[in-house]
Amino acid sequence: MSIFEQRESAIKAYCRVYPTVFDKADNARQTDENGKQYIDFFAGAGVLNFGHNNQRMTAAVVDYLQSGGVIHSLDMHTTAKRRYMEHFTETILKPRNMTHRLQFMGPTGTNSVEAAMKLARRATGRQDIVAFSHGFHGMTLGALSATANQYFRNAAGVPLNHVKHFAFGCDKPCPGCELGCGMNSIDQLRAIYTDSSSGIAPPAAFLLETIQAEGGVKVADKDWIQALAQLAKEVGSLLIVDDIQVGMGRTGSFFSFDDLDIDPDIVCLAKGIGGLGTPMAMNLVKPEFDDHWSPGEHTGTFRGQNLSFVAGDVALDYFDDDALMNKVRQDGETVLKKLQPLAEQHDAINITGKGMIVGLDVGDGDLAKKIVAQCFDQGLLIASCGTGGRVVKLIPPLTIPDEDLQQGLDILAKVTDSVMHMEAAA
Amino acid sequence: MSIFEQRESAIKAYCRVYPTVFDKADNARQTDENGKQYIDFFAGAGVLNFGHNNQRMTAAVVDYLQSGGVIHSLDMHTTAKRRYMEHFTETILKPRNMTHRLQFMGPTGTNSVEAAMKLARRATGRQDIVAFSHGFHGMTLGALSATANQYFRNAAGVPLNHVKHFAFGCDKPCPGCELGCGMNSIDQLRAIYTDSSSGIAPPAAFLLETIQAEGGVKVADKDWIQALAQLAKEVGSLLIVDDIQVGMGRTGSFFSFDDLDIDPDIVCLAKGIGGLGTPMAMNLVKPEFDDHWSPGEHTGTFRGQNLSFVAGDVALDYFDDDALMNKVRQDGETVLKKLQPLAEQHDAINITGKGMIVGLDVGDGDLAKKIVAQCFDQGLLIASCGTGGRVVKLIPPLTIPDEDLQQGLDILAKVTDSVMHMEAAA
Amino acid sequence: MSIFEQRESAIKAYCRVYPTVFDKADNARQTDENGKQYIDFFAGAGVLNFGHNNQRMTAAVVDYLQSGGVIHSLDMHTTAKRRYMEHFTETILKPRNMTHRLQFMGPTGTNSVEAAMKLARRATGRQDIVAFSHGFHGMTLGALSATANQYFRNAAGVPLNHVKHFAFGCDKPCPGCELGCGMNSIDQLRAIYTDSSSGIAPPAAFLLETIQAEGGVKVADKDWIQALAQLAKEVGSLLIVDDIQVGMGRTGSFFSFDDLDIDPDIVCLAKGIGGLGTPMAMNLVKPEFDDHWSPGEHTGTFRGQNLSFVAGDVALDYFDDDALMNKVRQDGETVLKKLQPLAEQHDAINITGKGMIVGLDVGDGDLAKKIVAQCFDQGLLIASCGTGGRVVKLIPPLTIPDEDLQQGLDILAKVTDSVMHMEAAA
Amino acid sequence: MSIFEQRESAIKAYCRVYPTVFDKADNARQTDENGKQYIDFFAGAGVLNFGHNNQRMTAAVVDYLQSGGVIHSLDMHTTAKRRYMEHFTETILKPRNMTHRLQFMGPTGTNSVEAAMKLARRATGRQDIVAFSHGFHGMTLGALSATANQYFRNAAGVPLNHVKHFAFGCDKPCPGCELGCGMNSIDQLRAIYTDSSSGIAPPAAFLLETIQAEGGVKVADKDWIQALAQLAKEVGSLLIVDDIQVGMGRTGSFFSFDDLDIDPDIVCLAKGIGGLGTPMAMNLVKPEFDDHWSPGEHTGTFRGQNLSFVAGDVALDYFDDDALMNKVRQDGETVLKKLQPLAEQHDAINITGKGMIVGLDVGDGDLAKKIVAQCFDQGLLIASCGTGGRVVKLIPPLTIPDEDLQQGLDILAKVTDSVMHMEAAA
Repeated sequence: MSIFEQRESAIKAYCRVYPTVFDKADNARQTDENGKQYIDFFAGAGVLNFGHNNQRMTAAVVDYLQSGGVIHSLDMHTTAKRRYMEHFTETILKPRNMTHRLQFMGPTGTNSVEAAMKLARRATGRQDIVAFSHGFHGMTLGALSATANQYFRNAAGVPLNHVKHFAFGCDKPCPGCELGCGMNSIDQLRAIYTDSSSGIAPPAAFLLETIQAEGGVKVADKDWIQALAQLAKEVGSLLIVDDIQVGMGRTGSFFSFDDLDIDPDIVCLAKGIGGLGTPMAMNLVKPEFDDHWSPGEHTGTFRGQNLSFVAGDVALDYFDDDALMNKVRQDGETVLKKLQPLAEQHDAINITGKGMIVGLDVGDGDLAKKIVAQCFDQGLLIASCGTGGRVVKLIPPLTIPDEDLQQGLDILAKVTDSVMHMEAAA
Repeated sequence: MSIFEQRESAIKAYCRVYPTVFDKADNARQTDENGKQYIDFFAGAGVLNFGHNNQRMTAAVVDYLQSGGVIHSLDMHTTAKRRYMEHFTETILKPRNMTHRLQFMGPTGTNSVEAAMKLARRATGRQDIVAFSHGFHGMTLGALSATANQYFRNAAGVPLNHVKHFAFGCDKPCPGCELGCGMNSIDQLRAIYTDSSSGIAPPAAFLLETIQAEGGVKVADKDWIQALAQLAKEVGSLLIVDDIQVGMGRTGSFFSFDDLDIDPDIVCLAKGIGGLGTPMAMNLVKPEFDDHWSPGEHTGTFRGQNLSFVAGDVALDYFDDDALMNKVRQDGETVLKKLQPLAEQHDAINITGKGMIVGLDVGDGDLAKKIVAQCFDQGLLIASCGTGGRVVKLIPPLTIPDEDLQQGLDILAKVTDSVMHMEAAA
Repeated sequence: MSIFEQRESAIKAYCRVYPTVFDKADNARQTDENGKQYIDFFAGAGVLNFGHNNQRMTAAVVDYLQSGGVIHSLDMHTTAKRRYMEHFTETILKPRNMTHRLQFMGPTGTNSVEAAMKLARRATGRQDIVAFSHGFHGMTLGALSATANQYFRNAAGVPLNHVKHFAFGCDKPCPGCELGCGMNSIDQLRAIYTDSSSGIAPPAAFLLETIQAEGGVKVADKDWIQALAQLAKEVGSLLIVDDIQVGMGRTGSFFSFDDLDIDPDIVCLAKGIGGLGTPMAMNLVKPEFDDHWSPGEHTGTFRGQNLSFVAGDVALDYFDDDALMNKVRQDGETVLKKLQPLAEQHDAINITGKGMIVGLDVGDGDLAKKIVAQCFDQGLLIASCGTGGRVVKLIPPLTIPDEDLQQGLDILAKVTDSVMHMEAAA
Repeated sequence: MSIFEQRESAIKAYCRVYPTVFDKADNARQTDENGKQYIDFFAGAGVLNFGHNNQRMTAAVVDYLQSGGVIHSLDMHTTAKRRYMEHFTETILKPRNMTHRLQFMGPTGTNSVEAAMKLARRATGRQDIVAFSHGFHGMTLGALSATANQYFRNAAGVPLNHVKHFAFGCDKPCPGCELGCGMNSIDQLRAIYTDSSSGIAPPAAFLLETIQAEGGVKVADKDWIQALAQLAKEVGSLLIVDDIQVGMGRTGSFFSFDDLDIDPDIVCLAKGIGGLGTPMAMNLVKPEFDDHWSPGEHTGTFRGQNLSFVAGDVALDYFDDDALMNKVRQDGETVLKKLQPLAEQHDAINITGKGMIVGLDVGDGDLAKKIVAQCFDQGLLIASCGTGGRVVKLIPPLTIPDEDLQQGLDILAKVTDSVMHMEAAA
């Protein structure tokens, strides 16, 4: 028995899907200890936007380590943190006229969501947060209350209160979903929050992803999200965008909402912002709300991750010009072009997405599972998401070489076609 | 205005206490950008047990980065993770006959506590957790419910339910504390849990630190903690030890409870286990409880931190022999010998601790604040904790050179003596 | 200063609306201490279905008192209780093939709702209850969680959890209401409860009034309520009908749902069932759910109100034949005929109702208040309800003499017309 | 099968203990339908302080009914209500210099507790209420949170939050109880509420019975209750006395706390105040807290029970002079004199109480059950209470004739002695 069999917790999951031991990694490829290579369309669940072991970043980190730079600093000031904050402000915030401040917390996405929820409650004096069906926001108790999936919710062991879920406003109907999303949901929400006998009081905040990644790559309708932002203002609620998985360039611009004409009060970031896959989380908060914090009210030991500042600083270079974002948009089209024929051939298949996050809804979790397993056998790492795991999700490194993208798509298309045909024949 | 003034969140705290910008660090010393050196008795809030930029670790990490090892792996298997798990099992668990499994989660202490609470609730079908006054367990909503400090609790914005607090069993009375700790508290707890009309039902778990670090370096009485462990068994509750700050060698052996004759069902670890200050968290869970997990029920993006596995693996070397632990015990005595005269001269001063965590209770938060500030001016980083911040806490790197320890103690003793005299004169 | 000014709690409310001191009452009339008579269209908030001081009932109660019958009996058996239970079973349950058992509890409507909620949670092992916007179910903490009105909810002082509110399915659109009621709400609910990522798990029960009385006389659509009952079965939830205000003959048959083809698992009754206005509450519970109770789990001192059994027994006589119910239906038509012209003359007016509960929505709470006040001056007791108090509600005694009904309607019509014209002129 | 077997809810309880059908009642005697008479030491769970069918009261009620007085009036003013309020103010409040206002609510004890909890939360802006182990405060969700007994709590089906339980300060140690009551519990509470790191914030109110009736006739120590009242003031919490079972003369004066030198902010009354056993509940509230109510925030249909005002007014006559209270104190001594020998003969027996509430703790619920059953057979109605039902509780009508009291005590003493001897022999 290996040590994994002997001693690893029964909670292990991805290692069941990808039953091997990985040893090396480079950009969009991982190599296991037997030397077998895999193209990676999963990218560490959306962390590795700039590829495994991005060489510009590893070089910077090695330099930093060898120079004796401070590695761990809580929320003390360091020169590395200053460089990161200046770069982020100049490259990302100022061009967008965003006045937001930067808050660092425990280096996990769930922690950034917890901090955002706390602040919204503090700033409004209200308790309820509105989140949306199919939303995913994390696993710690506060964030879990906002996560919609019952499998995760059932693990809480206590009631998950103070969050209400409503239907998400997808940009087009999802097959099999009758939650009633779309524009009329906003009118209903407004009616609920302005009728003092609805039983439901206005929330501290509306918390949402612009694209529900774990929820099955559900893309918010632009009109819907604008109307929601407007409603939030009307009823005195904050708008919190959880851009943890789809921010940092994933959709073809830094923020997923850059083309949505909304102005979130808080933006939650994590995953990709540390560049190299070392942990980091950061909230962008408008000063008028940030001022509600008292010093140290939401602490955490690993707030000052200087290796992440160093690698994250290199990552910001990718946003100093348009090269990578152009590639993302082009690659996104390449993906759609390759997958669209599948949707035309198989009625059950539905394709959603934006930039380099694409969902291939095959209508059934068991089918998706087969596709994922056969892809793995053929050297492609890919994962499923959505209700019952029915959506195969593509989130490769944004830096993926063309040939890797093509090869990965070839495997995926062939496997999917074969699995769907076998299903139809059965 | 610096970027910190312009853009850093109002929540910032330690940088207010240490108003400078750090640039380099080496073992027990940090250097700011003006070249001023500081001896570090704070060690990143107990993370850097093996010193800043421990050279054996940075070398291993640099090698790993240059060899193209997998950096980020979620909960997939990697060769680095295997090495870590094997080393931990051989060095730490087997010699203690501990059958516990290793669970990795989001790399923060708060996340490990959340996971432990979930599992205890799942395994018992109960909701309440018992935690203790002055306990600190984290900032996310589940862990925050167990954290006692009102300043942190008030930031929740929602009621913190499903945790009940009782008095902690200190090994000696704390000046000014009348919470009624000590052995009789166990009889009271047993009475509460066996009287069906007490209004309080038996909990899923008792969650405690053996030494309440943030709570003011309160050391649990050995008889009390054994009786508590016994009570937990009697009433069908799990015993969870949060060893996040005082484990990993801090008290002179790997676990803080190695000499307490208790057998915790779950041990929460974080902070020091990543060796270098890169994030990592791990729970040790008895198999009979671990089996209650279903795959992936408590996930998190940054579960597979291979740089932490690599550095953490080097950290485990320190436990292959007794050298470091012997030094910790000796240094602990050195500290006490140096500080004891202060307690003899100043009635208000009370000293607690074990190994290399020592608390200097000066009886008043404002005095402690002055001491911390004057130490900073004189080149010593140290922090306060406990109710109202009245306890100056010493948690230097375990690897601190003798001369740094002496020099730091000299500063601390002199500053404390001077502040206490001025106070007496005022 | 009167004793009321000196010593009555600031919470007093109806006595502010009707500023006099009542002395005598008889069927549909009350007389104040100055001898002024009032026609009563309010009937003790729907308690006095059989009129004030119903002479058959007072005679029976006087006889009972003079014979030394047991007055207070907790849940012990008495001969009076037996007579009541037998009469109720023969007259009400058996003709409808209802197998329900009778549960008596603390003699308030809110207590019957609390008991129903407890039992539904016990029987299903679930925590959430679904209630509906504009629903009213009581003031104690459990029932208050289901009551929609924010004014009442705000008085709780603690979060009201474990109840979710959805839009009620009115039989026609209510002016100014955009909550999105109607048939499609059922499809949405079904989608929510069958999508494991909606964030919302199936409830223990759906709790509703067939006509939301306090909510503004909103009448449920028959198709909607049948679909809801069907959905409850599909998702394993109980159907609880709160018939406290609109049962007991108010709509023209004993239960408000007699013509709706639904089969509620629990029916909550109170108000009118004690006949004379002495307190009593009773739940009808299907045996398969009732069996989940253990003895005495939901107790209450005043469960055995024998004066209410005696008067309530006389009240059941009214259901041994069709005379009263025919009168109710005819009187209901008389009311509508009289009020309909108001709706035709004033756009703002909307009329809803069934049998002898009729709502006159005048579109604005201040207008309704004026109407209520002028009616009082002219000798008519009537009250307003609904969001902001915009609906004038008619719930006279079912036994009201024709001339009193006519006279009351004359006052109401004239006052309303005058107030609406003055408003239009302003 | 009788109608009770066919149709009464499985929740029935007292009718299982007293398996007969009662028909008549007079002062301290009930007669079943077979003509068998029972002496009543239970008095409707403490409702019938003035005896079954008190003739002065039934006469007044019959007069009132025959005169056409208003029976049901919500919170409108009636002449009967005025008489009651004036009498109560003159006889009870003014002689004690109590400025309290009278608040009427739904006519159950649980409802009065709910109202008190709401108001305390409103007035302080805090959520937690402190209640005490073995306390009983009702069955609706808010009051149930304060009730200690797990059997009742388990029926809630949802977590009971926002109430914390501490050990009650009995005037002498209870056999088998190790909850640690007594004076030191106050110091512990003060420590908890003044230590900002205890994990427990000061409550909105301390809610307690001066004698825990259902909890096993546990009498509060006078020093303890005064210290608690003092602590409440110090930490800004209200003091709420639930005098529902032990007020209204039960202990030998109107309030149970008349000799305790405390000044409660809210007093909850119900049970006996309606005189005849018709429902009524009333809170006495200091004006400075009562002013926090907005009109109608805590409503209820049966707030204006004029039959209870009429009978309750007669009941107040008993407090216009000292005759009845003198009798209560004398009868209390008679009871103790009769029972004391039992305690001397049987080690397991412990006697507690004050005035005409006396507990005979026989050490074991099964023994108490046998005693209750044999007493019933021999014509004595008596009930058990306390943890596991181990305490036989005597609460006869205060108006009990001497011969009935003697005869009842004879039965009880003989039965108890016999059961205890058989137990000892077994």
